[in-house]
Amino acid sequence: MFLRIDKLQTELPAPKKADPNAAAALQELLGGKYGEMSTLGNYLFQSFNFRSKSKLRPFYALVAAITAEELGHVELVSHGVAMLNNGPDKEANEAGGADVSKAPFAEMQDIRLAASFMSNGGGAMPMNANGASWNMDFVTTTGNVVFDLLHNFHLECGARLHKLRVYETLSEPTGREVCGYLLVRGGVHAHAYALALKKITGADITKILPTPNIHLDRIPESRKYLAEGSHRRLYRFSPEDYREIAGVWSSDETALPNDPQGKLEVVDGPPEGGKIHDLTGMASAFTPDYAPEEMFEIATKLYKKSR
Amino acid sequence: MFLRIDKLQTELPAPKKADPNAAAALQELLGGKYGEMSTLGNYLFQSFNFRSKSKLRPFYALVAAITAEELGHVELVSHGVAMLNNGPDKEANEAGGADVSKAPFAEMQDIRLAASFMSNGGGAMPMNANGASWNMDFVTTTGNVVFDLLHNFHLECGARLHKLRVYETLSEPTGREVCGYLLVRGGVHAHAYALALKKITGADITKILPTPNIHLDRIPESRKYLAEGSHRRLYRFSPEDYREIAGVWSSDETALPNDPQGKLEVVDGPPEGGKIHDLTGMASAFTPDYAPEEMFEIATKLYKKSR
Amino acid sequence: MFLRIDKLQTELPAPKKADPNAAAALQELLGGKYGEMSTLGNYLFQSFNFRSKSKLRPFYALVAAITAEELGHVELVSHGVAMLNNGPDKEANEAGGADVSKAPFAEMQDIRLAASFMSNGGGAMPMNANGASWNMDFVTTTGNVVFDLLHNFHLECGARLHKLRVYETLSEPTGREVCGYLLVRGGVHAHAYALALKKITGADITKILPTPNIHLDRIPESRKYLAEGSHRRLYRFSPEDYREIAGVWSSDETALPNDPQGKLEVVDGPPEGGKIHDLTGMASAFTPDYAPEEMFEIATKLYKKSR
Amino acid sequence: MFLRIDKLQTELPAPKKADPNAAAALQELLGGKYGEMSTLGNYLFQSFNFRSKSKLRPFYALVAAITAEELGHVELVSHGVAMLNNGPDKEANEAGGADVSKAPFAEMQDIRLAASFMSNGGGAMPMNANGASWNMDFVTTTGNVVFDLLHNFHLECGARLHKLRVYETLSEPTGREVCGYLLVRGGVHAHAYALALKKITGADITKILPTPNIHLDRIPESRKYLAEGSHRRLYRFSPEDYREIAGVWSSDETALPNDPQGKLEVVDGPPEGGKIHDLTGMASAFTPDYAPEEMFEIATKLYKKSR
Amino acid sequence: MFLRIDKLQTELPAPKKADPNAAAALQELLGGKYGEMSTLGNYLFQSFNFRSKSKLRPFYALVAAITAEELGHVELVSHGVAMLNNGPDKEANEAGGADVSKAPFAEMQDIRLAASFMSNGGGAMPMNANGASWNMDFVTTTGNVVFDLLHNFHLECGARLHKLRVYETLSEPTGREVCGYLLVRGGVHAHAYALALKKITGADITKILPTPNIHLDRIPESRKYLAEGSHRRLYRFSPEDYREIAGVWSSDETALPNDPQGKLEVVDGPPEGGKIHDLTGMASAFTPDYAPEEMFEIATKLYKKSR
Amino acid sequence: MFLRIDKLQTELPAPKKADPNAAAALQELLGGKYGEMSTLGNYLFQSFNFRSKSKLRPFYALVAAITAEELGHVELVSHGVAMLNNGPDKEANEAGGADVSKAPFAEMQDIRLAASFMSNGGGAMPMNANGASWNMDFVTTTGNVVFDLLHNFHLECGARLHKLRVYETLSEPTGREVCGYLLVRGGVHAHAYALALKKITGADITKILPTPNIHLDRIPESRKYLAEGSHRRLYRFSPEDYREIAGVWSSDETALPNDPQGKLEVVDGPPEGGKIHDLTGMASAFTPDYAPEEMFEIATKLYKKSR
Repeated sequence: MFLRIDKLQTELPAPKKADPNAAAALQELLGGKYGEMSTLGNYLFQSFNFRSKSKLRPFYALVAAITAEELGHVELVSHGVAMLNNGPDKEANEAGGADVSKAPFAEMQDIRLAASFMSNGGGAMPMNANGASWNMDFVTTTGNVVFDLLHNFHLECGARLHKLRVYETLSEPTGREVCGYLLVRGGVHAHAYALALKKITGADITKILPTPNIHLDRIPESRKYLAEGSHRRLYRFSPEDYREIAGVWSSDETALPNDPQGKLEVVDGPPEGGKIHDLTGMASAFTPDYAPEEMFEIATKLYKKSR
Repeated sequence: MFLRIDKLQTELPAPKKADPNAAAALQELLGGKYGEMSTLGNYLFQSFNFRSKSKLRPFYALVAAITAEELGHVELVSHGVAMLNNGPDKEANEAGGADVSKAPFAEMQDIRLAASFMSNGGGAMPMNANGASWNMDFVTTTGNVVFDLLHNFHLECGARLHKLRVYETLSEPTGREVCGYLLVRGGVHAHAYALALKKITGADITKILPTPNIHLDRIPESRKYLAEGSHRRLYRFSPEDYREIAGVWSSDETALPNDPQGKLEVVDGPPEGGKIHDLTGMASAFTPDYAPEEMFEIATKLYKKSR
Repeated sequence: MFLRIDKLQTELPAPKKADPNAAAALQELLGGKYGEMSTLGNYLFQSFNFRSKSKLRPFYALVAAITAEELGHVELVSHGVAMLNNGPDKEANEAGGADVSKAPFAEMQDIRLAASFMSNGGGAMPMNANGASWNMDFVTTTGNVVFDLLHNFHLECGARLHKLRVYETLSEPTGREVCGYLLVRGGVHAHAYALALKKITGADITKILPTPNIHLDRIPESRKYLAEGSHRRLYRFSPEDYREIAGVWSSDETALPNDPQGKLEVVDGPPEGGKIHDLTGMASAFTPDYAPEEMFEIATKLYKKSR
Repeated sequence: MFLRIDKLQTELPAPKKADPNAAAALQELLGGKYGEMSTLGNYLFQSFNFRSKSKLRPFYALVAAITAEELGHVELVSHGVAMLNNGPDKEANEAGGADVSKAPFAEMQDIRLAASFMSNGGGAMPMNANGASWNMDFVTTTGNVVFDLLHNFHLECGARLHKLRVYETLSEPTGREVCGYLLVRGGVHAHAYALALKKITGADITKILPTPNIHLDRIPESRKYLAEGSHRRLYRFSPEDYREIAGVWSSDETALPNDPQGKLEVVDGPPEGGKIHDLTGMASAFTPDYAPEEMFEIATKLYKKSR
Repeated sequence: MFLRIDKLQTELPAPKKADPNAAAALQELLGGKYGEMSTLGNYLFQSFNFRSKSKLRPFYALVAAITAEELGHVELVSHGVAMLNNGPDKEANEAGGADVSKAPFAEMQDIRLAASFMSNGGGAMPMNANGASWNMDFVTTTGNVVFDLLHNFHLECGARLHKLRVYETLSEPTGREVCGYLLVRGGVHAHAYALALKKITGADITKILPTPNIHLDRIPESRKYLAEGSHRRLYRFSPEDYREIAGVWSSDETALPNDPQGKLEVVDGPPEGGKIHDLTGMASAFTPDYAPEEMFEIATKLYKKSR
Repeated sequence: MFLRIDKLQTELPAPKKADPNAAAALQELLGGKYGEMSTLGNYLFQSFNFRSKSKLRPFYALVAAITAEELGHVELVSHGVAMLNNGPDKEANEAGGADVSKAPFAEMQDIRLAASFMSNGGGAMPMNANGASWNMDFVTTTGNVVFDLLHNFHLECGARLHKLRVYETLSEPTGREVCGYLLVRGGVHAHAYALALKKITGADITKILPTPNIHLDRIPESRKYLAEGSHRRLYRFSPEDYREIAGVWSSDETALPNDPQGKLEVVDGPPEGGKIHDLTGMASAFTPDYAPEEMFEIATKLYKKSR
């Protein structure tokens, strides 16, 4: 079972303006082969399909707990996409009388992924930067534990490479923060899978890290997370379960050589998190609708009733 | 953010034997157009992309909270698939010396979705009963609240129809329980979206329920859930958030005419839930591996260290 | 069986100039999830697969007759796409000696859907605004009549939303006329499915209309169709059959509250229609070929022979 | 524009019993690369995109008129699929009280395309015999007339090969009749495209026919169509238009050497056609619904009103 | 550039009988995510896209040379598939007069991938065991050398797992030989990529081998290849180039601990190879055609002329 | 079996600058329906699946030998794509200290296929100009020799049309050379398949050539290849095999009427070929990595050891 908390895993700064091509770039980290839907999808199904869970509890718990964090990564990138498509939240919604007959969205014909406006009204979708759908070809779940862990290690390294490249195309703060945060967290997952493999096979695969061969202190947006030790923390993301991840991400181990040093630690609660943005609707785009005033009024009454 | 609990939303009885074609049938409810990946994917992205969240809080909260339940539905069906593919949990794993050269899995050539064995070792995948991948074509997220709610209402009705038909093909208990439980919970979601639409538009769309036109007391596996009132309960699936769903699923409303009567209620905690099955590995299928004894030993040590 | 008439359902004004990105926008209404290929595909297969046709004649006839109209919608949007890609018809074809070695189509590298030129020579294809193919994931045909009608009602509402957004990106007359016409006709279909559902279930689902919540008189290109009462007419699109649609789209019913008032009526013949544009070929694009003069001469002779 | 007639292009004998794997075989001729959706899709979009229609009228008319026939072929195969999945029409619908809890469709787990039952209730879908969707990869529309005609000639030859092989797997009459009829009609289309190419280029491509190298009199189900001269007839499928096809399919030409001899002729009206089967619903499969009696009653009233 | 030799990389025993479901199982090793089309596609595009080839010659040469071997693997599996679908070569082709009207291929409706007969006449296709197409989602080519090598190492381990499972379903000799041979050669490639990674990063990733954890002497069909030292040999598959692979697959290194010991060696020529099977046509399946006698005669004359 | 030579089939001039949209245009000729992956894929699988190889040796050899050339075409276009994405080779790699935090690739958000940078670092992929994947829908292999040859003839004509159109969009030399060369070689293949068909059926299908109707001397980049007689040569691309192609591409036949005249000839060796470009890496794009100096040093040592 899963519970939901109405917060993002970290605080995202608002975009300065709507920037659909930046949003389209960020889509690569959402629905691309090495995007968050893929890390989520792989660990989700691997955790369901995990064999001999009782005998392999620390490894099962590792995959299961990271799955929960990946859900929040999918959420974080999706919010980044929607925020970049829609621009900063506005005080008030457009008047319902916006004139649709004056081609108010003429420029939407030239954005890279035009269907993101036409079909999704600027919302995020499980697709990559070229608009191709996420699908099961991106999921590997064989039931062979060593192989699945090796796959996951490779997946996290690939995810790092893609995040770095997308980051290099972004000049506004929302998307850069998404990348900066995820680079640190993805590093934790790569490290964790490397430790799991090392404990089972003895292969010192951590020497392959970091791949690509660049330290995170080169990324200004990552530095604050390094400074607070995020790279040494694995969250359980569960009220009670998955404590056995401490068998892998153990306090006997330390941070990777090129990151700020210190012991690895398992954190019981979720991170503090950041606020969910409002994504103010735009009547002329029919979000939440063309004349939403009555809907707002109804919602206000229902809201009061619920308190 | 999302948290995870190491339990299923309900208790699933173990299968009597491995039954790959029954598992393949259940896949329709996992990755088909009207399967749980679709309800999850729609509500997940709709909740991310929801416009004017602050002004439409009860509707936003409804979609966001149901998303969390759908995650557990994906989990439940996936476990059903994996359990049916693998048969009942065994006391002990196969000896590592299983002879792979005697075509021990000859019959796997004739199961309907042979790749489920060859590639996934009997694990669930985000695909339908014909082996076609789940993909973004199954996701509608337009940012128009009335339309998205209408879509969701139609989606839940379609999901009900597919569950009924899959149920009619199943003769073993694991899959039937999956269907029986989900039919009740899906009914709740259809009812909730109908109420939301009714409150906004005034259209009495609940009269379309149930679609198909059959009462759940015809399904023996659904009756116990009806008896305990599951059809009248909407879970918040959150430690603190989404209380505003009570504006829609309110105690002023009652169960649908043909279901056991009583007031609708919002439940604060998650359901009690059922146990996660072990899915004992099979060395000859290389799950968790061919000679896993050493891996088990390592895991045992790590487990102890984590306690 | 189907018959064909060499006319469009309405007259389309010629584009002022070639505008490939406008054509690409219009593709969303052709091959997108809520485009005309989808309304066609759903009703086509639903009409084939319709159960108990004799006992449910008015509902069968409704789906079957609307299918024929949707064919003409696919045709209309396709012509819009091809016209926008190719620009206005020219008096004469280019001389065959156009120089292909001077990169005459250099700008085609930068249009959004470059393959539309390279592969289709500016022709329409069953794909959406991002170039993704139409496919069977967009077809719902369950054989359950209430559910299929509900699906169709939702589909028409979604189609309306997509048409509105595409319209808002268009500033030239061809594409705007396509949208203006289809918005009126789509409204008829949404209304018809709502009436069918209401008659079967009693649910007053017409109250959900219009979705999105905008009246068509806001669309200048729609007004003339409203003025002539197109929104109150359902065509049989058949020499003899489907008269039973009058059981649903009956003269007892009237136009929706916000549209020009009047009784609903079933029209026996097809609409008057508009001319098919010539789409003058361009030798340098090898349409109809690089040196087509001989082909034209042959065709002229064959044409004479056929008269 | 298109009109619809409530008849099939030929009379199909009822199946003796439900035979889902035979239906699945027939799907290859519906949604496969060389199936009827492909001939339809190619000619439909080629006719929309046809350049210099006025100067190339006989060739444009050929493609446009054959499109209308292909629509009827899609219909014919679809009916064949649905009939084979559902078995012979029954006098009366099942009582609404069918017991869904006794796994009444257990055998549906083992049919080749299980989703055809679970999702489509035995209805036809635009997919091939392996359940893969029809899509735009099967459409070639380049705007180059010679090339598109060459493509169409190859497409019809490929369609013939696929029909022959599917026919060889069928032992019940419905599907065999579908194949027998379509083999004759497909032969006409291959011949017509060969004549068009020959008239433009001078290449005597008719010598490649028949491909595969087998005469139709080997197919008992084709013989009656040969006997009545169907292989020499091209239908206009239009009230008034496309008379120019007589420039290509001209009375100066005769049947292919191995077919019954005689002049080619253009037929003004559509073929006489055969009846649309009722496809009696099955309450236990929720077609048209679980308890459809009330729906039948409503339909009867509406039917009377429409007369 | 590539050259072709009319031999398989090893000798395949003829099948005893046609066995389409065994052929379908083998398809997983051809077009599945971890099949030979994937190893080919990854190394082919990685070798094209390789950056700084001159400075990284040994690593470039490694990927480029293995690509050539993978082409032969695709060939080998494809022949296995076609042979299993078609059965043993026959002395003479069927008489052209085979009766197609007696449903000679009725049983083809029930094979798992029926389109393999209907569309491909028993030929291999780039698809997996469920009939899903190979596609670019299976190709990773990032230009980052360490990451691409890590991906390749994981890919070869996954390929091994899939080969083992497919092998376990096969009881006839053709398919088993395919698996036995490829397991040895795949082991070489995994070893080679591990050595490359170790030389660059220092990580002793060879300790992860073998994955799955089973020695090849458990596979009777692999033993003769082990005995002749195939597991210690890397072929250059080039008249003159790629000698630099000896920098990675060097004579300083030895076989993996559990395989027969000895030094690694680079082989200049290709392996001796085995014969290409004839795949005798079957007139009733229209392969090479229904009445091929004249074609055979023409071919004989052309053959003589070419000598 | 296949061998590989470290050369391209012809010399490609270096691009003047990086031009990602030109590279994207060239992708149509790589992974589009009528691109080189398709000609390769069709002939590769047709040659594997060829029936009665011994009796039809000249036709089998033709398909098999052309396959080897197509591999080189895939290679040639891929190099063109990668070269255009990456620009001219540089003397030295970027210093490893490139600053990734200054959005050095901001402009990559606006290229047509942004994932080509983000995921592939400028490398070629098996996809078309719209970013859609190559897949098995583009492969026809029926086992019927006449039909497969007819398909191949149509495929080569379509490939010619696509090459012409892509060429018309290109203004830099690398891509134009790719097109100029492939137009000549594609012409050879179309001619060869036409001759094969003519020899079997007697149909003079060569009269359809050239399609489109333009002579190659209009393409400056093709002229030098015409001048050296490339259009009259078919390469065996094999050390010893496929001599029987001389039965089809025989010295009794001459060049097509509009090409420079002379006899057709079979060439024993491969063409002389051109050099493989280095594709100098770019540290800031992580190709071959961010700090590759140590990797270069290791490679140099391994290179020396291999000599």
